[in-house]
Amino acid sequence: MTTTTEKPRRNGVDTATLFATLDAVKGQNEIAKFQFRASNTWQTGTHSRSTASGFFGAMQELRHESDTVLDFDHPAVLVGTDKGPTPVEYLLHAIAACLTAGIANIAAARGVELTKVTSTVEGDIDLLGILGLSDGSVRNGYEQIRVSLAVEGDADDETLRGIVAQSRRRSAVYDVLANPTSVVIDVVTG
Amino acid sequence: MTTTTEKPRRNGVDTATLFATLDAVKGQNEIAKFQFRASNTWQTGTHSRSTASGFFGAMQELRHESDTVLDFDHPAVLVGTDKGPTPVEYLLHAIAACLTAGIANIAAARGVELTKVTSTVEGDIDLLGILGLSDGSVRNGYEQIRVSLAVEGDADDETLRGIVAQSRRRSAVYDVLANPTSVVIDVVTG
Repeated sequence: MTTTTEKPRRNGVDTATLFATLDAVKGQNEIAKFQFRASNTWQTGTHSRSTASGFFGAMQELRHESDTVLDFDHPAVLVGTDKGPTPVEYLLHAIAACLTAGIANIAAARGVELTKVTSTVEGDIDLLGILGLSDGSVRNGYEQIRVSLAVEGDADDETLRGIVAQSRRRSAVYDVLANPTSVVIDVVTG
Repeated sequence: MTTTTEKPRRNGVDTATLFATLDAVKGQNEIAKFQFRASNTWQTGTHSRSTASGFFGAMQELRHESDTVLDFDHPAVLVGTDKGPTPVEYLLHAIAACLTAGIANIAAARGVELTKVTSTVEGDIDLLGILGLSDGSVRNGYEQIRVSLAVEGDADDETLRGIVAQSRRRSAVYDVLANPTSVVIDVVTG
């Protein structure tokens, strides 16, 4: 009789299922083709509300356990009503969360128990760009985004840094922010 | 005595304040320098929670009227616990909301009354990239993001399309998604 000493979960990650999923995708690449979706409805002024529930993945239509409802607005200083964060702020949350999820998964796969992952993100943006007041030298988006991560666990500095580096190399959000992504806009007027 | 027939608000946008803000920024470019921020704390597995409240802008520290609290996770099919949307889904909400806020502002500035702005966004992503199962031909992020906007108001098709086009040209989120942005990652281990 053989007993396994492998813990079923490490860092809250079901590593057995994670590896089984990787094997399944290796066997049938089509499983990895996903499509995420969002719907947005203008409320008034700069306030809009965005929702999501369904997505496509693993060769089927799927739904999240809970529907997403997000409010977006500009603050008063930008002539909005501050009913929610600005759209650009969500990008900062997304990069932090994407790196963090990757760190948890990669640490689990490498046998490292994490005790803490926190991060702060700053994004510098000169609004001369979006206000149309630049001579062209100021871009519309962030000039720079800085992520400061604090990671603790039962591994040495080099191992923990290697986990973060691998998370960056495999981060979907990092890729979209750091590299060009095709954004196609279609308009219907009524 | 002169009376003004200018409406104080159009599309919920305080156009007088909007134009006054533009004039103020023209007079002192420093007002336009903003910094947005986010803080994220790993919960367990791929679940993290992100918060924000303060930001810098108009030469001062400012706070949103309400604090932001956002949950992020992976769905069960991606070996998560689905406590929130995936990080990449927030990017889709952000591009829709950014374009919509711009459309409302630009329409107001151009004297167009909007009656409807809705949008749906789709993002195609092949997870062979983030799963490390690609030979290098599949990127980590979205292959393409498609935004379908429906815009209605008291203007002809050409005018409404012109407003959308200008919103895209001045969108901070569009810029960050479509063009490269510097993302600097700093790590402290413990």
